Amino acid sequence: MPLSERIENAVDRALALSQGEQAPERLSGALVYATTPGGARIRPTILLSVAKACGDDKPVLSDAAASALELMHCASLVHDDLPCFDDADVRRGKPSVHRAYSEPLAVLTGDSLIVLAFETLARTAEVDCTRATKMILSLTRRTGMPNGICAGQGWESEPKIDLGAYHRSKTAALFVAATEMGAISAGHDPEPWYDLGALIGEAFQVADDLRDALMDASSLGKPAGQDDLHGRPNAVSEWGVKGAFERLSDILAGAIASIPSCPGEAALAEIVRMKAQSIMPKVPAGNRV
Amino acid sequence: MPLSERIENAVDRALALSQGEQAPERLSGALVYATTPGGARIRPTILLSVAKACGDDKPVLSDAAASALELMHCASLVHDDLPCFDDADVRRGKPSVHRAYSEPLAVLTGDSLIVLAFETLARTAEVDCTRATKMILSLTRRTGMPNGICAGQGWESEPKIDLGAYHRSKTAALFVAATEMGAISAGHDPEPWYDLGALIGEAFQVADDLRDALMDASSLGKPAGQDDLHGRPNAVSEWGVKGAFERLSDILAGAIASIPSCPGEAALAEIVRMKAQSIMPKVPAGNRV
Repeated sequence: MPLSERIENAVDRALALSQGEQAPERLSGALVYATTPGGARIRPTILLSVAKACGDDKPVLSDAAASALELMHCASLVHDDLPCFDDADVRRGKPSVHRAYSEPLAVLTGDSLIVLAFETLARTAEVDCTRATKMILSLTRRTGMPNGICAGQGWESEPKIDLGAYHRSKTAALFVAATEMGAISAGHDPEPWYDLGALIGEAFQVADDLRDALMDASSLGKPAGQDDLHGRPNAVSEWGVKGAFERLSDILAGAIASIPSCPGEAALAEIVRMKAQSIMPKVPAGNRV
Repeated sequence: MPLSERIENAVDRALALSQGEQAPERLSGALVYATTPGGARIRPTILLSVAKACGDDKPVLSDAAASALELMHCASLVHDDLPCFDDADVRRGKPSVHRAYSEPLAVLTGDSLIVLAFETLARTAEVDCTRATKMILSLTRRTGMPNGICAGQGWESEPKIDLGAYHRSKTAALFVAATEMGAISAGHDPEPWYDLGALIGEAFQVADDLRDALMDASSLGKPAGQDDLHGRPNAVSEWGVKGAFERLSDILAGAIASIPSCPGEAALAEIVRMKAQSIMPKVPAGNRV
């Protein structure tokens, strides 16, 4: 089964846990709206690719991990879009959750998706309790405080930003969760997989900054120029467009070089190379790099 | 060690996990602010009381469960106080988190505390993996969708409220988590403990509705008359003050009668009786019941 199909099936199964006859209908709808149809599903794709490279001996675990990670990512998008943060009207080409439903339902959608992510992982304990709790611990570390995506978003409320910590936690953390949980799901030690996640995350951040600076809202599927608008530190303001492109290539080369020795090492390198190609921003006509 | 001391120590240990040199300082501070000093810590007190009644053979587990439950409760208070919900200026006698810090930091404080609750539980897997994951599953069910406190809050966005489902999920759910997790932490089956949690939760909801209707803000430590103001269904509008008091007594008697047969049954009944006394609202001078 192609990875994309495994991911959609796993997300659907996880979402089904959140639905029920006695549940409030609008919030139920908002959970589905916030998670389907998905974006590129790049984090769970990396997770499953790492799991496959490690043998993927218990696909029930890697599927659950993939959906949990994607739910957590969607939760972060819903909360980041709230009026008190980005105040984004559009996400993935349709109205953001607080625009389509309401602000209270957007807060609750994020909260519910966070909880659902952990429920999805905890349910795999009957297959392998040790791996289940290790995956839960990885996800908590990469999402909460002091080093997860909550911390990353928290840096934007500081008078003085630690840029390294900001980027590591804001964007790289969930990619680290992807490589760590992929390894754990297949019974491998997560530690050697940290660098791959961190480097892919860094590449993603730079690519995102470039897109934010170079593209317009209709191509992005969300408002453009947000970094400048909110005065947020970003790769383009730091190194310029050309410098950011060079940096992106270097990071991706480092990511491929960092892949630990494992049964599916070569295939995984090929996947990272392809994903790298797909995140490389296109320079719009008229813009010179 | 008195239960109150165990709870404060456990909350402090859990909070310590969220702090770090590389963490954003204001969000770190907001997590501590939102959780200490505590309120009555009634949910973790019930949890530890049930654990003791069941033998409490692994206090590391019951302590972690107590702190996780309290963190989750605090997270719900921080999010419920947000401008898009209750817009509460005051909580536990001091400015609410979004007033003291900011709205973005209040959203992130809630998110971080939810994640921290699961981290705290997952860390006990090295002591007892099966119990750890069962506790995580109980907490996810009682907090997320379709039946947890997120669902409860979600009902307030529905055009037509299912009153039974609303009360069960909005208030009773975390008391059910208290009795279930207390039992699980001591290696007991959680199922027979459902009723005790549900009934204590129901009593709490009625007592809270009575306090909201009868008391002023300075005695409550938070704004009074919120139910009427927001047109929320409540016990006083349904049964009147006298009827609500009668209902409260009946529910508490039922709660005590529901306690499953266990080593510490009599002692637990006494604790529930005392807690019942402490939640019984005082009728202010001049109000007739």
